[in-house]
Amino acid sequence: MSPMFVPGPVDVAPVVLAAQAKPMMPHRSKDFEEIFRRTAEKAQKLFYTQYRVFQGTSSGSGMQEAGVRNFVQEQVLSCVNGAFADRWNKCAIANGKKADRLEVPWGQAITPEMLADAIKKKSYEAVTIVHNETSTGVENPVKELAKVVHELSPDTLILVDAVSSLGGTKIEMDAWGIDFLLTSSQKCLALPPGLSLAAASDRAMKKAETVANRGWYFDLVLMEKHRLKDSTPMTPVMPLIFALDVQLDRILEEGLDNRFARHAAMAKRTQNWAVAHGMDPLAPEPYRSKTVSTIKNTKGLDIAALNKFLLTKGMRIANGYGDLKDKTFRIAHMGEITMSDVDSLLANMEEFMG
Amino acid sequence: MSPMFVPGPVDVAPVVLAAQAKPMMPHRSKDFEEIFRRTAEKAQKLFYTQYRVFQGTSSGSGMQEAGVRNFVQEQVLSCVNGAFADRWNKCAIANGKKADRLEVPWGQAITPEMLADAIKKKSYEAVTIVHNETSTGVENPVKELAKVVHELSPDTLILVDAVSSLGGTKIEMDAWGIDFLLTSSQKCLALPPGLSLAAASDRAMKKAETVANRGWYFDLVLMEKHRLKDSTPMTPVMPLIFALDVQLDRILEEGLDNRFARHAAMAKRTQNWAVAHGMDPLAPEPYRSKTVSTIKNTKGLDIAALNKFLLTKGMRIANGYGDLKDKTFRIAHMGEITMSDVDSLLANMEEFMG
Repeated sequence: MSPMFVPGPVDVAPVVLAAQAKPMMPHRSKDFEEIFRRTAEKAQKLFYTQYRVFQGTSSGSGMQEAGVRNFVQEQVLSCVNGAFADRWNKCAIANGKKADRLEVPWGQAITPEMLADAIKKKSYEAVTIVHNETSTGVENPVKELAKVVHELSPDTLILVDAVSSLGGTKIEMDAWGIDFLLTSSQKCLALPPGLSLAAASDRAMKKAETVANRGWYFDLVLMEKHRLKDSTPMTPVMPLIFALDVQLDRILEEGLDNRFARHAAMAKRTQNWAVAHGMDPLAPEPYRSKTVSTIKNTKGLDIAALNKFLLTKGMRIANGYGDLKDKTFRIAHMGEITMSDVDSLLANMEEFMG
Repeated sequence: MSPMFVPGPVDVAPVVLAAQAKPMMPHRSKDFEEIFRRTAEKAQKLFYTQYRVFQGTSSGSGMQEAGVRNFVQEQVLSCVNGAFADRWNKCAIANGKKADRLEVPWGQAITPEMLADAIKKKSYEAVTIVHNETSTGVENPVKELAKVVHELSPDTLILVDAVSSLGGTKIEMDAWGIDFLLTSSQKCLALPPGLSLAAASDRAMKKAETVANRGWYFDLVLMEKHRLKDSTPMTPVMPLIFALDVQLDRILEEGLDNRFARHAAMAKRTQNWAVAHGMDPLAPEPYRSKTVSTIKNTKGLDIAALNKFLLTKGMRIANGYGDLKDKTFRIAHMGEITMSDVDSLLANMEEFMG
């Protein structure tokens, strides 16, 4: 496999790619329902939850829409420190919600103090937080943020997007008191794109029953009725459920703690290397992502030329996102990537830098 | 391949299954954008349209939601003669629209006369019609229905769900004046589920720009901006785009007219066989589906036992849908199914019937 150090779609193991090609079966059959149940059960371990895990036929953004449509009637607070948090805020507004922004510049984290100030001023049905901003390499302190919300505004639901971290970093949904935790297939889970996963707490589901205008496709109350029968209201993306089944076995076989340690070690190696070469990560400590290192391009590297060079070695990294293009570059170390891959990449980058 | 005569997910050709397993690449790359553009262009032939075809990461129901959220601000008329038309009506209501029902009993068709009466009484921004009701085997006369709307209420948009017929029956979007035509991957296109396709007319897209509360995930105005760059706002279901690329080549190689003739011949063979055995199709002529024959179970066949028997031959059919369970049974002849498969099935059914 030629490793792509891009933050999704990431490389997928050949055995997982092949699992998609299983012959079709009726989705309303015992055979498929059995697979659907066991993928949901295995996913609960990954989410550290006793609550239900929905398997959605959409990208992660679909579950952002599900979150705001099901758990917010009117007032939501969007914590915004990057492109995907901004998307969630825009998604809330596009769905008719009143979504205030608690905003800090890209590259910074949302702190518990800021969040405390915001929720003291006004009452919100929910807050949305992106755990790991793919655009900036910032990891928000979700455990501490959740704690503040529980203390100051216990009825406020806590909705968390962990698209680029779940499966690469430990996120303890139940212990931290997260109400809705979503991710997608093509990042740390190292599956092809097109499948979303999201866990929802009981109190969130109770709230959803009272929310009007939930729509049909992302109506989690409707989805829950079918989930209880190991099924879905619509035909699910079966090839990715087949692949998820195989990949969750591989992930659990590696061991979750081993997997998280591998990601953390690759992040440390990459970020230390960058600092040693005079380029700091965009995020300050202790908010540096374990899955995607975003490095300030203070050496003025020609990122397009760098990638052209890396492609001759069968590798590629990602340029900065949006306005951060060329001002930063991103090295994703998630999914199937190993420390030895990271070592090769950094050696190649040193060769390029001369 | 052991043929499944079920109305989706249908059997998928091995070469198409295998196409899903292509290694990943960044979705925002020239390589992927080229594939995404050519699948859209080939799909236009299938839709008989010069307009844009959206490739959605959802089931067909997602595009039902897209239709009502983008093209209806307030008033829509839902033509209802089966389960999937009923779903579209419920979807409209769940999205806050005022959706009147023009309803006939399951098994009957919506006629131009009925539709004329309804749109004379009240003004609607759009009508929704399911072309081919998977639940009843009724094909609505969409060409004639569209004509009536154009004559009596030319500003009303015509939204058509062709989930279980597009690719098996000729539906001429532009010539008939359809504004939004949607389908999904796992029926006549004989792909795995998880991908939707929908074409939208220019006047529909113009209307969408004026409609509030379109949401984010199914906002076709946003999707159009990205489509013009051969891309999507969210990460698309890439494995199914790879498979679509291969399958559209196979479909166009068979020839669309040949493909439609094959489906029509299999329908005729199946329905004539049923009549000859004293069991009429549920739908009256000329409204019988070309892709899924729904037969009245007037002989009182034990459908579960029949399927158990058929499974020993590597085949299966579908029971009736919902309240029609055991009162009808359904033989889907779509996608990769051939006349020789149908002959084998009917011979096996005769053996079972004794």
